[in-house]
Amino acid sequence: MLTLFHYPLSSASRFIRIVLEEYVVATQLIEEHEWARRSEFLALNPAGHLPVLLAEREVPLSGAIVIYEYLDETRGSLRQEKRFFPETSLERAEVRRLVEWFLNKFENEATRHIVRERIYKREMPLTLGGGAPNSQILRNARANIPSHMNYLEWLCASRDWLAGSELSYADLAAAASISVLDFLAEIDWKLFPAAREWYTRIKSRPSFRPLLMDRIRGIAPSSHYTDLDF
Amino acid sequence: MLTLFHYPLSSASRFIRIVLEEYVVATQLIEEHEWARRSEFLALNPAGHLPVLLAEREVPLSGAIVIYEYLDETRGSLRQEKRFFPETSLERAEVRRLVEWFLNKFENEATRHIVRERIYKREMPLTLGGGAPNSQILRNARANIPSHMNYLEWLCASRDWLAGSELSYADLAAAASISVLDFLAEIDWKLFPAAREWYTRIKSRPSFRPLLMDRIRGIAPSSHYTDLDF
Repeated sequence: MLTLFHYPLSSASRFIRIVLEEYVVATQLIEEHEWARRSEFLALNPAGHLPVLLAEREVPLSGAIVIYEYLDETRGSLRQEKRFFPETSLERAEVRRLVEWFLNKFENEATRHIVRERIYKREMPLTLGGGAPNSQILRNARANIPSHMNYLEWLCASRDWLAGSELSYADLAAAASISVLDFLAEIDWKLFPAAREWYTRIKSRPSFRPLLMDRIRGIAPSSHYTDLDF
Repeated sequence: MLTLFHYPLSSASRFIRIVLEEYVVATQLIEEHEWARRSEFLALNPAGHLPVLLAEREVPLSGAIVIYEYLDETRGSLRQEKRFFPETSLERAEVRRLVEWFLNKFENEATRHIVRERIYKREMPLTLGGGAPNSQILRNARANIPSHMNYLEWLCASRDWLAGSELSYADLAAAASISVLDFLAEIDWKLFPAAREWYTRIKSRPSFRPLLMDRIRGIAPSSHYTDLDF
């Protein structure tokens, strides 16, 4: 049994939860608040970010990119078919580019600000920056969503899956990230029909089901969040 | 012949230049300014960040993490010994964690702000944010250097190389990042003797020499920048 330190509305945590489900790795989930900077957690990951996986022999692995490469090497490479990395190095580079796009670029330009303002700040003490959302930060973050969604729409309209003809880690990372904004009703789906059709396909996978059960105290998910045919 | 779009004082670009030198890959360098957002460059990498490598068949690979994994798969894995990734998946996870630490965390908390304020803003038109450095941003970025240097000092004092007993990509990425701040005389080396000894070892490698020849118009490097025994 492995242990994953995560937060329900962290895109990076969600991505790793989906990968663990796909590989049917029994995992105990521990909810962690990055902003609390708990000393026992910082001892596992001095960088202080989520997720952290306690792998074999309780060795801590920090951050989604480190963890998915590790899970691919130890679990994914054993699967003859239905791998989440394609065959060639050039194709794998495209998968890695898109994983980084959604977990770093989209996250830093939009998602993490929205989660911080709307969710974290409700739970944080005032001394750590808790309180009402800053409407200017929210506005700036929201203004960055359409360009990313347009890019996702273009990828979905021009390829079967985000990185090419097969489902890959790029799809799982992007869907993890999108699912956070969808929970918070921040995506205007009618503008993005191809992305919506792609997201429906990912959302219907059994590995996605636990994410659809997540609930945050005091926040109702968007009305279509759990709807597989929205 | 491959082509690398880079900037001399970009940590991520320097890391890939070192890796290409180590693997003796003939590469044409093209200097690119991220802030200019040149349309031909954005067509190669819509994310707009450096470095970008035009690999085989001119396929663009974007970002240092994508590129070093690609170079490891296509060049590194052919080397029986002296590989920059260790044998086991757990050890490789530690290398990847530290590469990310220096290229993302240290970069976002300190280096990129200092390079932007001190270098980029001298070259940028006023309309894009050019002009005099913002002393508050510089002060905040500089205040973040010591904790990272303490962590580097601890790693250097407790291990032969950053990720363990062998030289790895972690050392090359960290040294690339440190070399930018060293060029700008932002590191007080007398406080970090173990890190200094480690940096001297890396800096003496032939792969590092081209970086020591870099010059930026109107900025003299620190007096010890090219000194291999400083």
